[in-house]
Amino acid sequence: MPLPFLTSLRWIAFSLAAAAGAGGIWWRIIDHAALAAPMGPASPIYGVTIPDGYRSWELVGPSLEAAPLNELRVIVGNKVAINAYKSGKLPFPNGSILVKLAWKRAQSPDFAPATIPAAATTVQVMVKDSRRYAASGGWGYGRFANGIPAPEAQQATCFACHSGHVRERDYVFTHYAP
Amino acid sequence: MPLPFLTSLRWIAFSLAAAAGAGGIWWRIIDHAALAAPMGPASPIYGVTIPDGYRSWELVGPSLEAAPLNELRVIVGNKVAINAYKSGKLPFPNGSILVKLAWKRAQSPDFAPATIPAAATTVQVMVKDSRRYAASGGWGYGRFANGIPAPEAQQATCFACHSGHVRERDYVFTHYAP
Repeated sequence: MPLPFLTSLRWIAFSLAAAAGAGGIWWRIIDHAALAAPMGPASPIYGVTIPDGYRSWELVGPSLEAAPLNELRVIVGNKVAINAYKSGKLPFPNGSILVKLAWKRAQSPDFAPATIPAAATTVQVMVKDSRRYAASGGWGYGRFANGIPAPEAQQATCFACHSGHVRERDYVFTHYAP
Repeated sequence: MPLPFLTSLRWIAFSLAAAAGAGGIWWRIIDHAALAAPMGPASPIYGVTIPDGYRSWELVGPSLEAAPLNELRVIVGNKVAINAYKSGKLPFPNGSILVKLAWKRAQSPDFAPATIPAAATTVQVMVKDSRRYAASGGWGYGRFANGIPAPEAQQATCFACHSGHVRERDYVFTHYAP
């Protein structure tokens, strides 16, 4: 076959692959650029922002927080963090991001035995950067309500609690739910 | 530049795009082929199987089930279902799949106020196919424990309960968590 024909075929294949891959590439860029391209205001102390697209990230696991908070929670992770969980190796590599979504709990109006999410409360973020956050075990923290970072005094409690309870698991409470 | 050089560049670009896009393409194929390519044994009555890759699907919302089940749960959806949630339009289109993951609940050994997942119990699946499942509101159901479908008598309770409580929401209990 003449070369120009083959070349056209290659461009068609390239265009199809590029179009189909755009989503995947885009998420990878976002994952790795989350620190470089802040979305919204950053947390005091750490300068951590809410990563764009986190609501679509893969489930790590759910949890329930007792009174007085009375919250249902879900922890999700970016690809770097999920791959680290699946590898079973600690510490989490730089670029790992974990996000905790939280809602007030409410009895389902449709099915009495079920408790379901009511109003969203906080979004909490852990970002691994062993150099930038060397003083806090390699993790930067951010706690946000309605997108607004909590005051500095609250942010300071993050590392204290993680360090006090799960230092040996690279400061991460949540296991990958089986 | 000579054409062979450009052609090589194009092949390099094509290969990179194809490699980066492989994940995205693969998930799209799986989403839409879940019914056509059964993974593991199918549920009685409906012939529903556990869709491959569901553990990576996007979060719809968490829930808690009271005694005697005492379970933490998370509902995830494939792209078709998530897009339907985001559009706010009912009914869910054909190809929508919702999966409920469930675990026994346990007090966290690391932090007393937290309840976390213990052993996985069931995986429950709803598949929208308005023609195939016309007799059950357009949804086929499957309940699995350790990958094995529950007996027919259990499967029969799915539609009865969904129909009795949330028929007006296209038989779907779970809202997209805010």
